[in-house]
Amino acid sequence: MYKANIYVTLKKGVLDPQGNAVKNSLHVLGYQAVSEVRIGKLIEVWLEADDEQNARRELEELIDRLLANPVIEDYQVEIVGVE
Amino acid sequence: MYKANIYVTLKKGVLDPQGNAVKNSLHVLGYQAVSEVRIGKLIEVWLEADDEQNARRELEELIDRLLANPVIEDYQVEIVGVE
Repeated sequence: MYKANIYVTLKKGVLDPQGNAVKNSLHVLGYQAVSEVRIGKLIEVWLEADDEQNARRELEELIDRLLANPVIEDYQVEIVGVE
Repeated sequence: MYKANIYVTLKKGVLDPQGNAVKNSLHVLGYQAVSEVRIGKLIEVWLEADDEQNARRELEELIDRLLANPVIEDYQVEIVGVE
């Protein structure tokens, strides 16, 4: 059993209305020091695989098919644990 | 200028309908090896601060006030860069 963290972020240049809304709310609350906020996803996945290489290959496949939109998003995969 | 990554995850035991929906979709696509999926947030924040200690204190304050719900969510702050 492998556990992976998948970090999905918007590509540079892609507008992030949710991040902007959070930034504006922080300014209203008085946190003027914040100059930018961008919001992405942290997807934790537990899966069975023979070894780490297979786990990584399977993860990249399912990210491409379902978890991230390669047109507007980048991702990083980090395998963080084995049980 | 500091850049921080804030990882917000649901606490253990808190139901994650979005994660379950993704897990079910992965099973439908044939990825039976996936046993669990949980979905959290990765919030990237850029802010001005005198030093890393002040940046971290300010970040923890704004997380408590706006970015995470301490009743159901845990968070980790990682300061990843200085410009």
